[in-house]
Amino acid sequence: MSISNRDGILVIGAGRSTYHLHKYLSAYAEKHDFTLTVADIDIRAAESMCFGQNSVAVQLDISQEEQLHKLLRSQKVVVSMLPAHLHFEVIRVCIDIGIHVATASYLNEDVKNLHDLAKGKGITVLNELGLDPGIDHLSAVKMIHSIQEQGLKVTHFESFTGGLVAPQYDTNPWKYKFTWNPRNVVVAGQGGIVKFIQEGQYKFIPYHKLFRRTEVIQIEGYGKFEGYANRDSLKYRETYGLNDVLTMYRGTLRRPGFCKAWDCLVQLGMTDDSYELPRVDQMTHRDFTNSFLAYNPNDSVELKLRQYLKIDQDESDLWERIESIGLFNSEKIGLTRGTPAQILQHILQKKWALEDGDKDMIVMWHKLKYSDEAGQSREIHASLVVIGDDERATAMSKTVGYPLAIGTILLFEDKILERGCILPVSKEIYNPILTELERYGIRFSETEVDY
Amino acid sequence: MSISNRDGILVIGAGRSTYHLHKYLSAYAEKHDFTLTVADIDIRAAESMCFGQNSVAVQLDISQEEQLHKLLRSQKVVVSMLPAHLHFEVIRVCIDIGIHVATASYLNEDVKNLHDLAKGKGITVLNELGLDPGIDHLSAVKMIHSIQEQGLKVTHFESFTGGLVAPQYDTNPWKYKFTWNPRNVVVAGQGGIVKFIQEGQYKFIPYHKLFRRTEVIQIEGYGKFEGYANRDSLKYRETYGLNDVLTMYRGTLRRPGFCKAWDCLVQLGMTDDSYELPRVDQMTHRDFTNSFLAYNPNDSVELKLRQYLKIDQDESDLWERIESIGLFNSEKIGLTRGTPAQILQHILQKKWALEDGDKDMIVMWHKLKYSDEAGQSREIHASLVVIGDDERATAMSKTVGYPLAIGTILLFEDKILERGCILPVSKEIYNPILTELERYGIRFSETEVDY
Repeated sequence: MSISNRDGILVIGAGRSTYHLHKYLSAYAEKHDFTLTVADIDIRAAESMCFGQNSVAVQLDISQEEQLHKLLRSQKVVVSMLPAHLHFEVIRVCIDIGIHVATASYLNEDVKNLHDLAKGKGITVLNELGLDPGIDHLSAVKMIHSIQEQGLKVTHFESFTGGLVAPQYDTNPWKYKFTWNPRNVVVAGQGGIVKFIQEGQYKFIPYHKLFRRTEVIQIEGYGKFEGYANRDSLKYRETYGLNDVLTMYRGTLRRPGFCKAWDCLVQLGMTDDSYELPRVDQMTHRDFTNSFLAYNPNDSVELKLRQYLKIDQDESDLWERIESIGLFNSEKIGLTRGTPAQILQHILQKKWALEDGDKDMIVMWHKLKYSDEAGQSREIHASLVVIGDDERATAMSKTVGYPLAIGTILLFEDKILERGCILPVSKEIYNPILTELERYGIRFSETEVDY
Repeated sequence: MSISNRDGILVIGAGRSTYHLHKYLSAYAEKHDFTLTVADIDIRAAESMCFGQNSVAVQLDISQEEQLHKLLRSQKVVVSMLPAHLHFEVIRVCIDIGIHVATASYLNEDVKNLHDLAKGKGITVLNELGLDPGIDHLSAVKMIHSIQEQGLKVTHFESFTGGLVAPQYDTNPWKYKFTWNPRNVVVAGQGGIVKFIQEGQYKFIPYHKLFRRTEVIQIEGYGKFEGYANRDSLKYRETYGLNDVLTMYRGTLRRPGFCKAWDCLVQLGMTDDSYELPRVDQMTHRDFTNSFLAYNPNDSVELKLRQYLKIDQDESDLWERIESIGLFNSEKIGLTRGTPAQILQHILQKKWALEDGDKDMIVMWHKLKYSDEAGQSREIHASLVVIGDDERATAMSKTVGYPLAIGTILLFEDKILERGCILPVSKEIYNPILTELERYGIRFSETEVDY
């Protein structure tokens, strides 16, 4: 393989879970002798993610247009690992200069509106190429296409992903620790109605019911999980070529019992991010909890909470989860201000931080139903489990970083011909990425289920 | 009394419940021989609210600046009965030209920001002068001031208002009919956290718990009511001169059982106004209900709803309320599109419309605690009940229209000296209005309660 163009690759963002992205790209840059630039607003973060001799760390504030332009000029592909709301500006400039872009973030309306511009300029902006979104698309669409190519019809599609802690290390009653952005966990499910289609019927779940409408999923060798629905399962029907599918449901996996306990926090109002509480600097965990309960001079906060949420005496697993996060403690929160969601996150981080030696785990599960030649319903399950190696080489870093790095190289090697702002759902993209992922142990196991 | 200035009064808005406002002002205009202009975008509405020979109907589209300016030029006071979000522009122009304004709407941030401008121009914008907000302020502040003037301290304040149907006519299981804007009833409690202070402790109720945290209130001769909390009870602490009050709680009254049944609709997600449902034109009431319930090919919508909301077999009053609004009917909704809240409103309007001969009822109730000279706690209750005369002369129209009309005349007669964007909480405003209201049977009865 020869590199037709000696221009470089720039990765903006060197956060903790970009480890494999940088590892993979730096090995590639070294092999092909071009410069991989690692930029971050924090130069030390950038330096820590420089692995080969061809990697160069740069301090970059993307609001400094001149510096950004100068840096971009020598690139062929830019990978943006910025927070989602900061992508747009970088993508706009890249299209303008004529640079391909790859990100692991959701394709939003603003970026979508750049599609024609990018296409006109012969530029590809490859979005949603991480884990979820990312590997879910690659693997789902490959399965769907292979059924459709036999002239058969996919009638039902369900898909769940979870970023969890590996079994041996799930040592708290929730069997959960923060392996990814804690804020996303705390506000999960907010910001829009949850909608999906089941057996041809549209279904809608308000946030305050979301964590009580779970499904149980069993994965060979890893036990049971429970899944709650993602916000908008409908939007991928077209992307996946499943316009008249009867069931389309995408969800998030947790260990059994998590969702019912989490719902208690939702019911109390602790996940609300829309207003700040007063007097946070003087507040204890217990005061925080009591803010959401009726005033009563005689009853304990514990009893008021039990009665309010109707937690019976014999629901000891649920109660143990509630107690375990320290909601009744008299310790100070330790923030000067904050929304309920920010305060809850802070309290949870005291208990749910990964400890030395803890390993994380990624679980993904698809279920497809289709009609075979005889009109008989058939069902396939596909599952992926990835365990992290250590605190740095996490499963999250692998499953986000590898597909994005491989996709970036496809762009760099001009192997993706589709132009505009696209998702990784065409053969030219998903086949090479899935094949390469298998080399790193990211491999689905499929089962045909008796139906 | 002489009218120092023969300029006119303009009322913008001639909706159904402006009857007494126009009645009162037209009698005044006739007595003092000046022109009362009644403007509405619908000229027939304006004409229907012209009562004396001094009233003139005008068709007005407030977005037509030139026409608005021309009309304003001959006015001394403008009353805006526009929807709340349309006030700002009219108020801005009035301040600019030098015209006082009165409204029955909440003083919002935009209007508040005009305070200095209005003050500088010597203009008064008198806000929140209807029923609630309006009579609640007048009556509460009068009670509070009379206690404070004795050198005593108000420690607790609670206030509830309800726009209901009069006892004889409350002929459905909810004992509720729409006597006011139905949309406000359907989305009540949304758009911000519910907060109040109780015994010095700040309390917060998320929307999905609001209708389960009610208080029961008994009013002599009218039986029991239940109250749920208004959004922000805290903001009137300063307005009422109660900065260090221990309890400050404002709420809305319904008949007992309403709130628990309403909560079922909230739990299902039927009051959500943030997204549109698909295929509404083909939808029956039953389909609508089923959109919020899990798919199951065998169970009935009724049973799924019972199970989801944990409505036991013996909760027959609650179940009767749910059934009575037709949620399980197979009739078409009759809209082509809509949010859940819009659809629910449409369904409820089929059942909760006032019938010929129905009378409405306004109920207001205050509870104050204060410490007497001996440091002893004392408690006063004050209640107001107003029953409508007929479909046109409703209690709502009286209790919104009279205070606003009387306040408008105070402005017209230069009897209000306070300038800027203000609330009706000073003696010069509440005393004359409350005195005049008594002539129309709007009179509180106070009781000192043993404590």
